[in-house]
Amino acid sequence: MKKTSNQLLLDLKILEPEIDVNQIKSNIILNCTINEICKDALLIQESIIEDLDAKQQIFRELDRLSLKNTILASSSSYLLISKISEYVEHKHRCINAHPALPPHVVPFVEVVGSNYTSNEIVRKAINLYKKANYAAIVVNKETEGFVLNRLQGALLNEAVRLHEGGYASMEDIDIALKHALGIRWAFMGPFEIMDLNAPEGIKDSFSRYKSGIQNLAREQNSVPEYSEEYLNKLENEQRKRLSYSERSNRIEKRNKMIASIRKLKLELGEDIHDG
Amino acid sequence: MKKTSNQLLLDLKILEPEIDVNQIKSNIILNCTINEICKDALLIQESIIEDLDAKQQIFRELDRLSLKNTILASSSSYLLISKISEYVEHKHRCINAHPALPPHVVPFVEVVGSNYTSNEIVRKAINLYKKANYAAIVVNKETEGFVLNRLQGALLNEAVRLHEGGYASMEDIDIALKHALGIRWAFMGPFEIMDLNAPEGIKDSFSRYKSGIQNLAREQNSVPEYSEEYLNKLENEQRKRLSYSERSNRIEKRNKMIASIRKLKLELGEDIHDG
Repeated sequence: MKKTSNQLLLDLKILEPEIDVNQIKSNIILNCTINEICKDALLIQESIIEDLDAKQQIFRELDRLSLKNTILASSSSYLLISKISEYVEHKHRCINAHPALPPHVVPFVEVVGSNYTSNEIVRKAINLYKKANYAAIVVNKETEGFVLNRLQGALLNEAVRLHEGGYASMEDIDIALKHALGIRWAFMGPFEIMDLNAPEGIKDSFSRYKSGIQNLAREQNSVPEYSEEYLNKLENEQRKRLSYSERSNRIEKRNKMIASIRKLKLELGEDIHDG
Repeated sequence: MKKTSNQLLLDLKILEPEIDVNQIKSNIILNCTINEICKDALLIQESIIEDLDAKQQIFRELDRLSLKNTILASSSSYLLISKISEYVEHKHRCINAHPALPPHVVPFVEVVGSNYTSNEIVRKAINLYKKANYAAIVVNKETEGFVLNRLQGALLNEAVRLHEGGYASMEDIDIALKHALGIRWAFMGPFEIMDLNAPEGIKDSFSRYKSGIQNLAREQNSVPEYSEEYLNKLENEQRKRLSYSERSNRIEKRNKMIASIRKLKLELGEDIHDG
């Protein structure tokens, strides 16, 4: 296996120092044919390029070659399973199962079915991901960006509005996220946080802050242009903060940090299967 | 000092086990008069109730009683310093300096001046907060919610749109934040993350994802109503997850978690003064 794959396994050792890296490697078979993949799979996780035609074609093949109970899951973050499975015979077993980057250390997958997907398949997929130690959530209806990227996109667009509007520097916006909001969000979601923000609980919190939150919603409705000129500016400013050659070290560090935070959460009793 | 104050000091011991709690207590003087406060302060941090009249009145008094170089800072999260200092004689030394909850463990303050505030005062305030081990950012222009609550509000409104629209449960939305987005955001901001999401850097990332992000901005423009009925529903669902009596334990746990994550970040070389 390649150097990068070995690095991924080392990240996992942060989480579980006792893990047997060679044992894991021996469970991974590379370069196998689609026939071999389909032979006895419980679940097939498609992760090819984000191209609708290519995905539609491979789903038709998977549907034809796999056992009739095999779950067919696409990792796609934005191509909807209703489209990907459009020409598949057994649509009921097709889902989007979107992991988060980097998937070997971020313990998350969001599962979304089309109108044809059976509830039983969604339930089975959730159970399989949970057994593999992923926090698996159900998105009840198809929507662009699912849950993860819709939350992320809302924040990202506002970060860009603040930067492009001259309210704060990239550096200071990054600081606001990582040193204030992010250290709470690492172990509590928006509803859990609101519940603790006023003496009587979540209703009390929203009652106190709702007019402010609504005012923000009214203002946060512009669509950033992301012009070539603006993106060049972002690139230039970012390269002053982190040189191009340092990016790969930063990616390794990112993965290590995520694994370390997961470990800390486990040590403090914040299990990934708690709601 | 009260039990709660002792708890706050214990949270700090997670961060710095060597800290001398009695020493810190002896530095804190309670129940002093406004004259005593003003006598020789470098910076006065006003944190009274969020009431404009009350704040305007206390700022007039602070301005009259303090040394001419004292920085007058309001902790307000939404009353702007241009309003609070409207009737103050020396407006140039008045700022919003908004900390994040809970301020004794979250190492963050955002500093915002009015049109009358001098750059020198902002610079001095930032230096003081940094010396006190806070990550201090500058918000260049007044705007409702500053940077912190604008980012938070964008995410919160979208979480509510997803929940109210029936796309996912409170529990699953909380999971998406805390087990996927939050464990990255605990140590990297939105621009730093985008920089690592495509091979060529931040411009490459935005170029690949911009049409998706823009589509989200177009859809995420409704203003949630936060009706009485909906807030009752939130409260009922949340109380099934965490009973009212367990909330105070959860608040203690939250503070402990934040202090532990800060400690982990320091151990892994993620200093709060890094941009």
